[in-house]
Amino acid sequence: LALTGYPPEDLLLRADFCEENEKTLRSIAREVGEELVIVGFVRRDDFIYNSAALITGGKVAATYDKIHLPNYAVFDEYRYFARGERPLVVTWGDTRLGITICEDIWYPDGPHVAEAASGAEVIINISASPYHRRKWLQRERMISTRASDVGAWFLFCNMTGGQDELVFDGGSCFVSEEGEVVSRLPLFQEAVGTVTIDTTKVFRTRLHDPRIREESEAFFPDATERITLRKKVSPPAAKGDASLSPPPGEEEEIFRALVTGTHDYVRKNGFRKVVIGLSGGIDSSLVACIAAEAVGRKNVVGVAMPSLISSRESVEDARTLADNLGIEFHVIPIWDIFDSFKDALEPLFRGLKEDVTEENLQARIRGMLLMALSNKFGYLVLTTGNKSEMSVGYATLYGDMAGGFAVIKDVYKTMVYRLARFYNSLKGKPVIPERVLIKPPSAELRPGQTDQDSLPPYEILDPILSAYIEEDCSIEEIVRRGFDRQTVRRVIAMVDGNEYKRRQAPPGVRITPRALGKDRRMPIVNRFFR
Amino acid sequence: LALTGYPPEDLLLRADFCEENEKTLRSIAREVGEELVIVGFVRRDDFIYNSAALITGGKVAATYDKIHLPNYAVFDEYRYFARGERPLVVTWGDTRLGITICEDIWYPDGPHVAEAASGAEVIINISASPYHRRKWLQRERMISTRASDVGAWFLFCNMTGGQDELVFDGGSCFVSEEGEVVSRLPLFQEAVGTVTIDTTKVFRTRLHDPRIREESEAFFPDATERITLRKKVSPPAAKGDASLSPPPGEEEEIFRALVTGTHDYVRKNGFRKVVIGLSGGIDSSLVACIAAEAVGRKNVVGVAMPSLISSRESVEDARTLADNLGIEFHVIPIWDIFDSFKDALEPLFRGLKEDVTEENLQARIRGMLLMALSNKFGYLVLTTGNKSEMSVGYATLYGDMAGGFAVIKDVYKTMVYRLARFYNSLKGKPVIPERVLIKPPSAELRPGQTDQDSLPPYEILDPILSAYIEEDCSIEEIVRRGFDRQTVRRVIAMVDGNEYKRRQAPPGVRITPRALGKDRRMPIVNRFFR
Repeated sequence: LALTGYPPEDLLLRADFCEENEKTLRSIAREVGEELVIVGFVRRDDFIYNSAALITGGKVAATYDKIHLPNYAVFDEYRYFARGERPLVVTWGDTRLGITICEDIWYPDGPHVAEAASGAEVIINISASPYHRRKWLQRERMISTRASDVGAWFLFCNMTGGQDELVFDGGSCFVSEEGEVVSRLPLFQEAVGTVTIDTTKVFRTRLHDPRIREESEAFFPDATERITLRKKVSPPAAKGDASLSPPPGEEEEIFRALVTGTHDYVRKNGFRKVVIGLSGGIDSSLVACIAAEAVGRKNVVGVAMPSLISSRESVEDARTLADNLGIEFHVIPIWDIFDSFKDALEPLFRGLKEDVTEENLQARIRGMLLMALSNKFGYLVLTTGNKSEMSVGYATLYGDMAGGFAVIKDVYKTMVYRLARFYNSLKGKPVIPERVLIKPPSAELRPGQTDQDSLPPYEILDPILSAYIEEDCSIEEIVRRGFDRQTVRRVIAMVDGNEYKRRQAPPGVRITPRALGKDRRMPIVNRFFR
Repeated sequence: LALTGYPPEDLLLRADFCEENEKTLRSIAREVGEELVIVGFVRRDDFIYNSAALITGGKVAATYDKIHLPNYAVFDEYRYFARGERPLVVTWGDTRLGITICEDIWYPDGPHVAEAASGAEVIINISASPYHRRKWLQRERMISTRASDVGAWFLFCNMTGGQDELVFDGGSCFVSEEGEVVSRLPLFQEAVGTVTIDTTKVFRTRLHDPRIREESEAFFPDATERITLRKKVSPPAAKGDASLSPPPGEEEEIFRALVTGTHDYVRKNGFRKVVIGLSGGIDSSLVACIAAEAVGRKNVVGVAMPSLISSRESVEDARTLADNLGIEFHVIPIWDIFDSFKDALEPLFRGLKEDVTEENLQARIRGMLLMALSNKFGYLVLTTGNKSEMSVGYATLYGDMAGGFAVIKDVYKTMVYRLARFYNSLKGKPVIPERVLIKPPSAELRPGQTDQDSLPPYEILDPILSAYIEEDCSIEEIVRRGFDRQTVRRVIAMVDGNEYKRRQAPPGVRITPRALGKDRRMPIVNRFFR
């Protein structure tokens, strides 16, 4: 759906949206000469379809409708689309191309099987395949298997960029009929590559490997549509094969996903500058680094908002980080505002002990100050909570959760540390001060507080959370992995009890197979507490 | 899905959840004697099914799997369930019962057709049919048509109560084979009714009306499962037929939906008391009335938080309302806190004019004070924004939008007035002071401000919003209904531009066919601005 972005969600229910998409398709078609261009768009007929347009000679010469519609995880395609029914093979010059869209090739018996059985030598797949950690590895492995299963070249073309929670990692690739990745474009980067391939081996491969003949058109008997498009021009002279872009390591990959997602959210929503509350802690430090990479250091404003509880070191660390990054930096103390709130509430709170109320007040004063800067100067507020905190509700609604985009909300705390160290080593210097990396994490909302007063150590918390959130494990299953039952119970109770907070959280980049957004849809009114 | 609540959402992806539901089913079965009891539950086989258990003699004697799975509007059943394939007719004593679940009978050719063709005299439908304005009328009309289409009695049994955004309106009914509603239980109220019916006319009707014979089993050839359960006991003596509960008027119906939704959200989440910011305006006044009805006046706390801009009348009106309702009432002035924020921001704001920043600061101070009361005393904060405001973003994120439940977020302003007048007439006295009903609405965030400085009159705004949000109309279509093009453009731009705010709003009761929640799923990053 290159024309509409993915997922267009309920925009698809608007007739004027589909109309505009068709208009755009026609205007693109008019620009296309004798080459063959394939574009994803929404096709209207009796229903709407998730479709590919094959354009040549100034017009749409054929269309293909997606057959397998995903309706799980972040996908809701049954909400909108009718299912295509016909695999498509296009003869283009000497080559037969099978057309597929995204999910189609994730099924071992998807339309590529019928297309190959109908002679397709190259299976083309246009995708908006949402990123999560290391997904491209799984994807390339799957494509290689599919290619060798049916003995056809696979050309996988993937979107890159961000939309709300989702980021798409690109990494388009060309895979030989033997399953070898011969070309890979970079991840998280728009890129064009020219590849020259030799499809003569396809026929020979199929003589040697009877599987595709056996399969024949079993899955789509007689259904494959076959068309021939006249090819008038020879291919552009190969400008040298697209290189095999080296795969990034895990930290680099995740870091770039976060940068891409943040850049696109900020820019596509029309913001130029962002503002971040810098506590001197690891989370806000990492977010500032990501922001500086995403929108440029001149567009990042850091603000330290010390209370009387904040240590001197915290403000120092925040300032050092800001200096290292070269971003604008301000200090706004919050103690007078805090006192004015306590004064106003004194008639109702008289005689009561200070508790989480006063802790939250401080976090909320900070949130309000950042929002005031946002209102006055048009900055987007980036929040700094990580997935470990967001899961257990160790964050203040309308406080540190206040903002437009939650950059690291899908990054567990242990990964926050890994990414921080990665960034420092990438830059070859401690941009994030070493002290930030080694001091015990603290919200600094009461004297002497550390995260570990309320939470298990992150090395224990994170795997419990991952088992519960990403794998939907029961308490029993998690305990069997070697965790203390009381701890598991407590962690899960915290996760369950804080759904209402997450419901009001800003979106953030999805980097795990199960983010705390449209990926995990839980009722708030829910008596299934373990 | 009486055992799990509806919709269980991603709890369904947890094996331990499904297990617990089966355990509960077995424990219910053990309580069942020789009567026939039908219970909605999640059935696990190779996949999971949305199912009905037929229980008699202490065990589950048969199950039926829902055939038509809704996946639109607020429904996501394809995300979870496999589709049932077999209509079911159960012979119970002398009577043949066809079993269906909710969506099944919304299809004219649903399983009730095959079941009737297989001899069913009574079609039983167990439903969790989410409420929206006047839906029960449409539903009864549909059921009447289905009953006379197939010449069978229909027993429609609907859930009541609230879950997050959804409220279910009950109104279970018995409809004769001629389509006459002979019995209706009250809306928004758990109730039990006993009905004695005569099914002898069913056979005669079918002799006279050949349609069902013609249809035969066209839609499910030979697929209907037929079982016989031994009926050992005679039916309980009819305690007098369940009465035909009189249908409520539109305002009463909506008011009761809001009361039910609020009651269930507060109680099911374990809260006892709620707190509301009372501005002296119509929205917060109505919310206070709904809250008093929902959780009892002793559990409602009203707080007026005047600024220097607030008129004396506003605080007076808030106090009068609180007195009329008999709820706890406090006044917390916000001017000192406001000054302390301005002082803290002075170094950054020096020389700049006051603007929306300062307006939002006031709204956010109020939000923070309510949240402080929430934290200190365990109150749930009810927010007071209406659908007109929420649609165009005429609300402050983390300000008046801060809270756990947004009671009237799906109620347009014009309906807010109607409901307020309804409530006063219900009580036979001006609980909401007359002055509140006639003064021009104002956010009172700057001197002399009224809503109509920024928004078209609500009589114009509301129908534009309804056309755009509920009907997905284009600008052209709305203009053709007689609205000024510039106004329509401006309103739609406001709706589109404020998706990010709605994403962070608390849930509230859905009363229209398209609420601003899981019902309307729009990307924030969205360049389709008209």
